[in-house]
Amino acid sequence: MSVSNHKQRLRDIENTGFGPNSGVEGGRLVNPDGSNNLKKRGIPVWERTSVYHTLLRMKRSHFFFFVFFLYTSINLFFAIVYFLTGVEHLVGGDGATTFFTKFMEAFFFSSQTLTTVGYGRVAPSGMLTNSIASVESLIGILVFAVMTGLIYGRFSRPRAYLLFSPSVIIAPFKDGKALMLRVATYKNNHLTDVEASATLALHIKENGKTVTKFYPLHLELSKIQSLALSWTLVHHITEESPLFHYTKKEVAETQMEVIVTIKAFDDHFSNIVQQRTSYSYNQVVYGAKFLPMFERSADGSHTIMELDKINAYELVKFPEAVNA
Amino acid sequence: MSVSNHKQRLRDIENTGFGPNSGVEGGRLVNPDGSNNLKKRGIPVWERTSVYHTLLRMKRSHFFFFVFFLYTSINLFFAIVYFLTGVEHLVGGDGATTFFTKFMEAFFFSSQTLTTVGYGRVAPSGMLTNSIASVESLIGILVFAVMTGLIYGRFSRPRAYLLFSPSVIIAPFKDGKALMLRVATYKNNHLTDVEASATLALHIKENGKTVTKFYPLHLELSKIQSLALSWTLVHHITEESPLFHYTKKEVAETQMEVIVTIKAFDDHFSNIVQQRTSYSYNQVVYGAKFLPMFERSADGSHTIMELDKINAYELVKFPEAVNA
Amino acid sequence: MSVSNHKQRLRDIENTGFGPNSGVEGGRLVNPDGSNNLKKRGIPVWERTSVYHTLLRMKRSHFFFFVFFLYTSINLFFAIVYFLTGVEHLVGGDGATTFFTKFMEAFFFSSQTLTTVGYGRVAPSGMLTNSIASVESLIGILVFAVMTGLIYGRFSRPRAYLLFSPSVIIAPFKDGKALMLRVATYKNNHLTDVEASATLALHIKENGKTVTKFYPLHLELSKIQSLALSWTLVHHITEESPLFHYTKKEVAETQMEVIVTIKAFDDHFSNIVQQRTSYSYNQVVYGAKFLPMFERSADGSHTIMELDKINAYELVKFPEAVNA
Amino acid sequence: MSVSNHKQRLRDIENTGFGPNSGVEGGRLVNPDGSNNLKKRGIPVWERTSVYHTLLRMKRSHFFFFVFFLYTSINLFFAIVYFLTGVEHLVGGDGATTFFTKFMEAFFFSSQTLTTVGYGRVAPSGMLTNSIASVESLIGILVFAVMTGLIYGRFSRPRAYLLFSPSVIIAPFKDGKALMLRVATYKNNHLTDVEASATLALHIKENGKTVTKFYPLHLELSKIQSLALSWTLVHHITEESPLFHYTKKEVAETQMEVIVTIKAFDDHFSNIVQQRTSYSYNQVVYGAKFLPMFERSADGSHTIMELDKINAYELVKFPEAVNA
Repeated sequence: MSVSNHKQRLRDIENTGFGPNSGVEGGRLVNPDGSNNLKKRGIPVWERTSVYHTLLRMKRSHFFFFVFFLYTSINLFFAIVYFLTGVEHLVGGDGATTFFTKFMEAFFFSSQTLTTVGYGRVAPSGMLTNSIASVESLIGILVFAVMTGLIYGRFSRPRAYLLFSPSVIIAPFKDGKALMLRVATYKNNHLTDVEASATLALHIKENGKTVTKFYPLHLELSKIQSLALSWTLVHHITEESPLFHYTKKEVAETQMEVIVTIKAFDDHFSNIVQQRTSYSYNQVVYGAKFLPMFERSADGSHTIMELDKINAYELVKFPEAVNA
Repeated sequence: MSVSNHKQRLRDIENTGFGPNSGVEGGRLVNPDGSNNLKKRGIPVWERTSVYHTLLRMKRSHFFFFVFFLYTSINLFFAIVYFLTGVEHLVGGDGATTFFTKFMEAFFFSSQTLTTVGYGRVAPSGMLTNSIASVESLIGILVFAVMTGLIYGRFSRPRAYLLFSPSVIIAPFKDGKALMLRVATYKNNHLTDVEASATLALHIKENGKTVTKFYPLHLELSKIQSLALSWTLVHHITEESPLFHYTKKEVAETQMEVIVTIKAFDDHFSNIVQQRTSYSYNQVVYGAKFLPMFERSADGSHTIMELDKINAYELVKFPEAVNA
Repeated sequence: MSVSNHKQRLRDIENTGFGPNSGVEGGRLVNPDGSNNLKKRGIPVWERTSVYHTLLRMKRSHFFFFVFFLYTSINLFFAIVYFLTGVEHLVGGDGATTFFTKFMEAFFFSSQTLTTVGYGRVAPSGMLTNSIASVESLIGILVFAVMTGLIYGRFSRPRAYLLFSPSVIIAPFKDGKALMLRVATYKNNHLTDVEASATLALHIKENGKTVTKFYPLHLELSKIQSLALSWTLVHHITEESPLFHYTKKEVAETQMEVIVTIKAFDDHFSNIVQQRTSYSYNQVVYGAKFLPMFERSADGSHTIMELDKINAYELVKFPEAVNA
Repeated sequence: MSVSNHKQRLRDIENTGFGPNSGVEGGRLVNPDGSNNLKKRGIPVWERTSVYHTLLRMKRSHFFFFVFFLYTSINLFFAIVYFLTGVEHLVGGDGATTFFTKFMEAFFFSSQTLTTVGYGRVAPSGMLTNSIASVESLIGILVFAVMTGLIYGRFSRPRAYLLFSPSVIIAPFKDGKALMLRVATYKNNHLTDVEASATLALHIKENGKTVTKFYPLHLELSKIQSLALSWTLVHHITEESPLFHYTKKEVAETQMEVIVTIKAFDDHFSNIVQQRTSYSYNQVVYGAKFLPMFERSADGSHTIMELDKINAYELVKFPEAVNA
């Protein structure tokens, strides 16, 4: 009874961007990679898609396939145009006679124009073909301008390069217990002024209707000066914590989700970087504590961080019987 | 009488950048696209125009027309130069004999030089023509450097991609009423640390003279962690609100304008983005409430946001008679 | 006597970056364009100069002269190399026979290689010449990469584009007087969250030794939401003001300097921009007030800002005799 | 005894990113250049290395060697491909007959294709060779796109260009003593809103085990408006200071380390810049004070900062006997 009162007394927050009482959400709210589990519709796909964002975040292999596909498509298009306007105006070359070899000559001339390599063994003659080639070389420069920018943008995009422990653990802490997860930078980057925030999402049945409630999770330490080694985020589960009143079973029933955001200043990019992740209830380990993930080098001259131990923990017993 | 007192008691703000008592403003202050309804003069147009800003914000079709126009102009210029300095120094080519074909040969040679495609079928010979071609290829590289930068700048410019509801509504709220408008991201971007602010502008007659007064509109929630779904900005019209004392008719007379600014951190750009809009009095809908604009997907696995419902509302009656 | 006490009571500030009691400074501290009137020495010029900063801020005409000079120098260098390693390995061309025409052929071949235009009318043959040309084309790409970046960097560098009134005036204000200056954006840029700060520097004789003291000048309004029209910065000269106790003559004797910094968020750049200026004592106008610099357009549809009136003021009498 | 109590009473900080009680660290924590003295392992080297960061921060000579090496490698690769697929399809050229000259012809053709210089003296013929050349020119554009970006990124990367005094001194200050170090910008850059922070790291033996403790060092002035001349950071060693209770010998035993971070806004980059350094106990000078490092120019028109005097100090005696 008092538990139920407690639950009701806890102030949920409405400023999560997911809307208050948004009980219509489907599945988890945030994917483990930090993106929202959300689709948009109602306006055309080209209006609701940022081509820049898409090309910037696409898998590397897909991106290069896209570049190659675009290159071939433009060449094909111009090969057809040169063919239709008279392939005989492309002078020089191997003296192609068949339809296919003529077409390929136009295709390769197109690629030499688009990339501005312009060997000139095959060269345009006459007004029309010269005009088309002139436009194509302009298009080539502009298209590759965008590609250049994109490749560099992909390469240089400020990112936090954070490795989160795949599990969130419920560990003994002070006289009680705490929810803990661990984060470390996995590249040779250096973050300063690092801020962390954690939000709990619960899908609760109210009057037979499922509503989603959000609660901030207070962290023991929510800001550090510099993230050199690993950082263990600790949420002490006190009476004030929204987690205090939920049993393990209830956590599963409410499809608990913990959304974690890290924001920091990256020295090398000289820019703010941010990374987000989300833990669903089945990523919670009850009764465990993290093992250290760094050690002194053999010669004592530097510290070694072992990134494969980001999720290393050992199971522990709580002093008293606790269902987290 | 007390209403009038109230009106005078309200503190207007002078820090809007529009200047205190700026009764000389013409028409609306801020356009719906967020730009100021303002012209500048007194210094030459090239000094008061940022070419970069202009080219960056110009419509896409206009921009590409500009690029094509520039390309053709430079080619024409150099074609004339090559022609005047002796088109016979462009060796090779089709053996042009007429004025027109000779000129076009110079034109196409120019385009091949500018884009650095340089087929070489037509090539410069002699000191003068070689020098001109050498300078032209340098100019080509520099001009396309700027174009490359601009195209990528247009492409990658941090923008908020926010969709505002075209209407601002006066809806029942708590025991009274509130001014509400709705905003959502319409692209696959992700905003965090989102801040909103709203300012009310009124053109009031004081001693027969029209002066413009600005009032901040207090928002129930002015900051959210993350803008995943839509966000309804709510200004509760309490006694403290500058809107409390105006009837619908007075709102029109004072040419009420609500200026809304959203500022946020964009994850993908790793940059602050900002968008502004303005509502004039004829965009206000009295007695309405917004309808939900998201739902669960058929398979329950994710949430769907329907962007075409951004302005979806239904008319409602206020409990008591209210002129907002 | 009490004046003197007042002067001593005023808290000077030491956090200006100019060092406390830095009486050794020569001339004005900050130039009107906002740069420090300061030279550095003690380390070699190439270590204490940022080539990037220099090329980014150099006058446009100087920059393009630099680019042209660099282009010609590299071509000259490679022309000499081709000449020394045997100009006869550059096959094709006009069949040059004299020293000069041979050298120029090498020069033009170099420029065609550097810009990658590569007509091929003159082309390298043999191991050595081919190797040099191969290296030159690589250098060409890298050099123009930097030039491209610089041109775009110059073009797109976030700047505040602020116009400051050339004069700072002492105007009647409330029951006393105030120091005022005016600022406006002169391009089609849009600044939000604009912050201003003003610092007073005085060169005071203490025990026969000149020391520089800094005082913050409190502004009536130091932050505005948006800088659409002009903004008049107002420092009310109250008893708390360091200016209260100085006569016009003393202001000249102490070589008074007012350093003003404006910091804002630019919508188009999506970046923080900053501009600084400095007023020396001979830019102060005593007893004047600024005239409005904007008006309604003839058709009443928009506001017009007259930038040539940024310094427009009319002389006024102070109610009582005041020496500011 | 009370000293020991004092030591224990001092609150150490846990928010340094080095982890609490991280007694396993080896050697100094932060290198003088501001990087962490840390190695990472446990995931493959290509996953824990940011190629972008590495290429951006690599020494200039190494970077250009890398570019040249990459260029040669790609050319070698394609030379082999052309050779294997039939070097006879590269028509024109010197009529090479030996294996080596044929290979080199393929190599140089490759370089002309990769850089898009494309003289065309040697040109591809036939389907296969044309296809390979077409792909190579695409690769060339993409590779040089990345190189272009990197070179410009290296060039334009926001950096603080701060010169720290190599020594940290213990100087007389007020009635006691203070730890001081000096910092100045050494390039023609201009920093505003400059913030400094200092952290003390001590390796203390607790129960026979070495643990690392961190303490914030309070600075007399931790923020200045503008860094024009030099700035002396001053930590007054009061009873509250963690340094108060350590003798010179103890400082060495605890391997004291002072980590200093400066964060500022750079006017020219319009960006936040940050620089960090670390002083180990053997860089501390006891009983000294810094000498001025700027003076008036001979003509009195500007100030001169002498950067070679950044570490200039004179030894002084403390009034009472002090072991810092």
